Amino acid sequence: MALIVQKYGGSSVGSIDRIRNVARRLVETHRAGNRVVAVVSAMSGVTDRLIGMAHEVSENPPTRELDMLMATGEQQSIALLGMAITEMGFKARSFTGRQAGIFTYGSHTRARIHRIDPAAVTTALDEGYICICAGFQGIAADGAICTLGRGGSDLSAIALAAAVKADLCQIYTDVDGVYTCDPRVVKDARKLPVLSYDEMLEMASSGSKVMQARSVEFAKKFGVVFEVRNSMNNNPGTIVQEETPSMESLVIRGVSIERNQARLTISNISEPVPYTAIILSALSDAEINVDMIVANTAHDGHARQSLTMNMSDLGAAQAALQKVLPQFGAEAKLETEAGLAKLSVVGVGMRSNSGVAATMFRALADAGIETGMIATSEIRITTTVPAADIEQAARVVHDAFHLNTVQE
Amino acid sequence: MALIVQKYGGSSVGSIDRIRNVARRLVETHRAGNRVVAVVSAMSGVTDRLIGMAHEVSENPPTRELDMLMATGEQQSIALLGMAITEMGFKARSFTGRQAGIFTYGSHTRARIHRIDPAAVTTALDEGYICICAGFQGIAADGAICTLGRGGSDLSAIALAAAVKADLCQIYTDVDGVYTCDPRVVKDARKLPVLSYDEMLEMASSGSKVMQARSVEFAKKFGVVFEVRNSMNNNPGTIVQEETPSMESLVIRGVSIERNQARLTISNISEPVPYTAIILSALSDAEINVDMIVANTAHDGHARQSLTMNMSDLGAAQAALQKVLPQFGAEAKLETEAGLAKLSVVGVGMRSNSGVAATMFRALADAGIETGMIATSEIRITTTVPAADIEQAARVVHDAFHLNTVQE
Repeated sequence: MALIVQKYGGSSVGSIDRIRNVARRLVETHRAGNRVVAVVSAMSGVTDRLIGMAHEVSENPPTRELDMLMATGEQQSIALLGMAITEMGFKARSFTGRQAGIFTYGSHTRARIHRIDPAAVTTALDEGYICICAGFQGIAADGAICTLGRGGSDLSAIALAAAVKADLCQIYTDVDGVYTCDPRVVKDARKLPVLSYDEMLEMASSGSKVMQARSVEFAKKFGVVFEVRNSMNNNPGTIVQEETPSMESLVIRGVSIERNQARLTISNISEPVPYTAIILSALSDAEINVDMIVANTAHDGHARQSLTMNMSDLGAAQAALQKVLPQFGAEAKLETEAGLAKLSVVGVGMRSNSGVAATMFRALADAGIETGMIATSEIRITTTVPAADIEQAARVVHDAFHLNTVQE
Repeated sequence: MALIVQKYGGSSVGSIDRIRNVARRLVETHRAGNRVVAVVSAMSGVTDRLIGMAHEVSENPPTRELDMLMATGEQQSIALLGMAITEMGFKARSFTGRQAGIFTYGSHTRARIHRIDPAAVTTALDEGYICICAGFQGIAADGAICTLGRGGSDLSAIALAAAVKADLCQIYTDVDGVYTCDPRVVKDARKLPVLSYDEMLEMASSGSKVMQARSVEFAKKFGVVFEVRNSMNNNPGTIVQEETPSMESLVIRGVSIERNQARLTISNISEPVPYTAIILSALSDAEINVDMIVANTAHDGHARQSLTMNMSDLGAAQAALQKVLPQFGAEAKLETEAGLAKLSVVGVGMRSNSGVAATMFRALADAGIETGMIATSEIRITTTVPAADIEQAARVVHDAFHLNTVQE
C-alpha cells in the first residue's frame, strides 16, 4: 500500500464537472489500494476575481488582508472536492493550510514553508479518509493566513509529500510531462520519461515553465520523487528524481527556450570603479531580476557590462541605471537591445561529454543564426538569439542532439 | 473611551460601495474615541451561491464540507472590509472565527458557541486596530470549521461583546429598530426606544423577526446591552437591556403578527392514552416545531387536542400523525385548518396591569374578528385569527392600547 500525494491545479478543478473528474481520479487511486492525499488550487479564474475585488476596494490592498481573501479560493475547491468524493460513496475530509499543519514564515502573498505538522492528515489517512488539502496557503507563527505566491500549490504538494513520507508525489497539470522541447515549436519533441532535479531546475530557469524552481529545489532538498502528469488522461508523465549514474549516458536532456528577452549594455566605463556592484545594486533596489551578465575590459582600458532581463523590466532598468551612469565617467553610455530570446541546452551528461557547446554553436551557425551573449552552468549552456530566429534555433539544436529519437 | 461591537448583516456589506459605507461608519466610531470591533456576515447572495454550488456537486452535501465552503463567505467580506478601512488610512485587522477565538460545539451548519477566547482581538484593540471578525463561524474542539446556522452572525456579535466586555453591541440591519407593530401593516406604528430582553424574546417568538431568539437569550444570559439600528442612516435604534422598574408602567410594548399558520386537531381520542406525549413525540421525530397547544376533554369522555404550526410543516405533520392515529381508538379523527395567522400583544407591564386580555379581545370582537386558539405567557397573550383579518386585527389592537402615542 503506497502513500500518494496528487496535486491538481486551477484548470484541473476549473468547473463542477472537472471537480468530479478529479474526484474520480482520487477515488480510483484510493480503490487501487493506496492512501491518498490531494493538494488542490483554487478553481481557475477565482483567484483573479478575488484580486479584482480587492483592487476595487483599494489600489494597494494590505497584503495580510489580500491573503485572507485569496485563501478562500482554495478553501472553496477543497470543500467542493470533498463533497464530490463523499457523493461517490467514499470518505473524504478537507483541510485548510492551517488544518494541514502548514506553517510559514516571511512576507504575506509570498510566504515560505517553515515546517509541516501533518498529524491531522495522517490520522485521517489512518481512518481511511481521502485527504484534500488546500494548496498555496499556510499560517504564520502569529496565526495569520499566508499565501505562498506563484507556484505555491506545487510547493504545498511537494512539502506535504515530504512531511507524510509519500512514496510518490504526482503533479497534475494540463501537459503530459516535460518534453525535450516545447512541442508547439519542435514538432517531434519527445516526452522525457525521467529527469534529475538539477536538469528540471535548469529547464525551469531557462524557460520551461512546467514548475517553479523553488518547488523543484524543495523536492531535491528533501528527496521527494515527483511525477508531472496530465489530469485529463492516463498517460505516464515525467518522473523527476535524484540523478542516477545512467542519466549521464545522455549528452543532453532537452532544449529550452525563453522569449521576450532584452539586453542592456553600459560601455565606456572609466575604471577603476566597482561597476558591477553599482549596477547590480541599482537593479536590485528597483526589484529587477537580472539573468545573464557579461563583463569585459576593452583594450583602451574602458570596461563594458551587458545584462539580460525580461522585456517587461527593461524600462525600469533603464531608469534605475541612468541615475548611476555619472559614476562611470563622462563617456559612459547606456544602450539597450530588445527583441531577443534565449536558447538553452540542458543535461547532466554534459559533465562527462565534451563538445556539447561546439555541437550547439555549429548547428546555429550552419543555420545562419546569430548568437549573442553566452552563459553556462555545469549542466546548461545558454545563448541569446534574435527573437525572430528562436523557433528555427530550437529545431536545429534539437536535431543536432538527435532528441527526436527514443533514448533509454 | 468605550468599547463598541458593531454587527453588519449581508445586505449592509452587499456590494463594494456598501462595504465602503460600513468602513466609514467604523472609522467614525473609532475617531469618536472608541475601541471598535466589527462582526460581519457574508455579502448578500454569496452564501446562497455557495450552497447552490454545493448542491450542484451533491444532493446531500456532507455538512462538514458545507461549513468549510460557507465559511469562505464571511472570510471574503472581512478581508475586503479590512482593505477598505486601511485604504482610508486607519489600522484594521480581520479575524476568522478561529482567529477571533470562537469555539463551538454541536452539529455542523448549526453549531452553538461554547466559549470565546478573545485574546487576539483584545491585543489588536490595544494596538489601535479596528478589529473585523467573521460572524456565523467558529471552530469545533477538533479544529473543524463550523457555522452557527440562521442568525449566527448576531450571535457571534453578542457573544464577542460579552467576551470583550463591550459597553454596547450595535446590531446593524435594514430597519431602524423594533416597532410597536410592523409599520407596513400599522401605519402609525412607532419605533420603541427601549425594550427588555424578555419582551424582545416574546416579540421574536411571536413573529417580529428582527433577531433570532437565541441571540437575545444569549444577551440576556450574559447581560449584553444591545441596540438594533439601521446601517443606512444615523437614527437612534432600539436598545434592548435588562428590565427596569419603569418599564412596567407601560401596559404593553407592542403587537406582533405571524402569518402562514395552520391548525391541526385530533378529536374523539378514546382515553386513557398518553395522547399528548404520543402526538408531540411523533411531531418531534418528524422535526416539526409545534407552537400553540390546546387540549381538553369533551363531556362524553373523549379528548381533543389542537396544535398550531407553520403552514409549510402541515403536510409532514399530517403524515406523521396519521401513523399514530390508530393508538387513539377507532373513532379518532384528524382535521386540519390552514389560512390562519397569529396576533400577540407583548409587554412586561402585563404582570402588574390587569385587564390586558379583556381589552385585546374586546377590540377584536368589536371589529367582528373571530379568534381561535389562545396561548399566554407571563408577558404575552397570543390568539389565532383568520389570515384575511390579521392586518385589521393588528390595527384595532394597536389602537386599543394607544401604541401610536408617544410613551416615555
